Amino acid sequence: MPLWNIYHPEGTFEDNASKESLSKDITAIYHDGPAALPKFYVIVNFIKLPQNSTYIGGIPNTGTPFIRLKIDHIAVTLPNQDEVYNSMTERIEEALKPHIADKGYDWEFHVDETERRLWRVQGFNPPPHKSEGEKLWRELNKAVPWEESK
Amino acid sequence: MPLWNIYHPEGTFEDNASKESLSKDITAIYHDGPAALPKFYVIVNFIKLPQNSTYIGGIPNTGTPFIRLKIDHIAVTLPNQDEVYNSMTERIEEALKPHIADKGYDWEFHVDETERRLWRVQGFNPPPHKSEGEKLWRELNKAVPWEESK
Amino acid sequence: MPLWNIYHPEGTFEDNASKESLSKDITAIYHDGPAALPKFYVIVNFIKLPQNSTYIGGIPNTGTPFIRLKIDHIAVTLPNQDEVYNSMTERIEEALKPHIADKGYDWEFHVDETERRLWRVQGFNPPPHKSEGEKLWRELNKAVPWEESK
Repeated sequence: MPLWNIYHPEGTFEDNASKESLSKDITAIYHDGPAALPKFYVIVNFIKLPQNSTYIGGIPNTGTPFIRLKIDHIAVTLPNQDEVYNSMTERIEEALKPHIADKGYDWEFHVDETERRLWRVQGFNPPPHKSEGEKLWRELNKAVPWEESK
Repeated sequence: MPLWNIYHPEGTFEDNASKESLSKDITAIYHDGPAALPKFYVIVNFIKLPQNSTYIGGIPNTGTPFIRLKIDHIAVTLPNQDEVYNSMTERIEEALKPHIADKGYDWEFHVDETERRLWRVQGFNPPPHKSEGEKLWRELNKAVPWEESK
Repeated sequence: MPLWNIYHPEGTFEDNASKESLSKDITAIYHDGPAALPKFYVIVNFIKLPQNSTYIGGIPNTGTPFIRLKIDHIAVTLPNQDEVYNSMTERIEEALKPHIADKGYDWEFHVDETERRLWRVQGFNPPPHKSEGEKLWRELNKAVPWEESK
């Protein structure tokens, strides 16, 4: 958690530096923000699509490049409050801005929230959010055995 | 909203005309139907997979081409009623028929519904469904500033 | 149902035998397990990503290959009980082990559950879980007309 699938057309995010810097800013949302999650929880897949693979309202995306981001949140389900949702989407927009809006691309994203208990990392049930186990995983930046009691 | 990811094998939807006509019929479901959404809300990604990438019940899909459609609905959550769900899936089948069934392909689709408030288009929180703002977006077929009060 | 999208880097699952054997073990989870679903319900897409397409915590996945599995469950929604969820994820881990962990790969998976009534197979509303219709589909291993009353 989270899983970001970024569908982008040929000609965008072609160099590794552009992908790395976007994925670092995405990671910061979850690692540096209030959730304080382990960095390795943040998976970003760049899924490059050839020309004439994406259609917007029935029209092929051949003009301004359109970046479509589908985000799955697993570790933390947000409380059902307008201001919490808005603060989350604001933080996402800020992370995307230098990489997408400022380059003149078009974009859209949406977040799905899925059941935490149907999630495993490296064979482990991840430790509860804000637990000592999660702090350990965050510190080591990897999945290790953790004690339920802690 | 909606996002359609169409996983299809090499040898299907190879020409742009076939992709454009299917995506136009998909767009009509949402734009011409009762939802009357803006056309540009409808994103269709054709994700072409090489031979021996898709397995059905453990068998590679090397015979009749199999088209797998995964649809995310974001802008409108349907009321939890059998007849409403059935009417939605019927409309989808009708749109797919000339492009998939009539070509002799096999197919399967499913729809996921996700939280509207965790969705942004071009940096905007989209206007409420059936609001004046949504009508404006539909008329202009693009995301523009809109007034909350309207 | 289910739909498994397996995002894997170049250099993994390159030969067809490795894909077929993993997808057979995935199929067994649903067909041989308590759900006893038809085999053809189980769709596995291997989505191979080029080097420098996947970032983990902002770092490109260039070392140990990382396999990210996103699973949609549609036909059966699990009862909301810790032990049921745990038993499901355990069964998934067992299926993955010889194909992923034992090869020295890193991996992560999560399952989303979606609305059964927004799902169609080959134009059919699939028969209810554990119905005579489902048994017929399982026996024939294909979608055929079925009677509501049965």
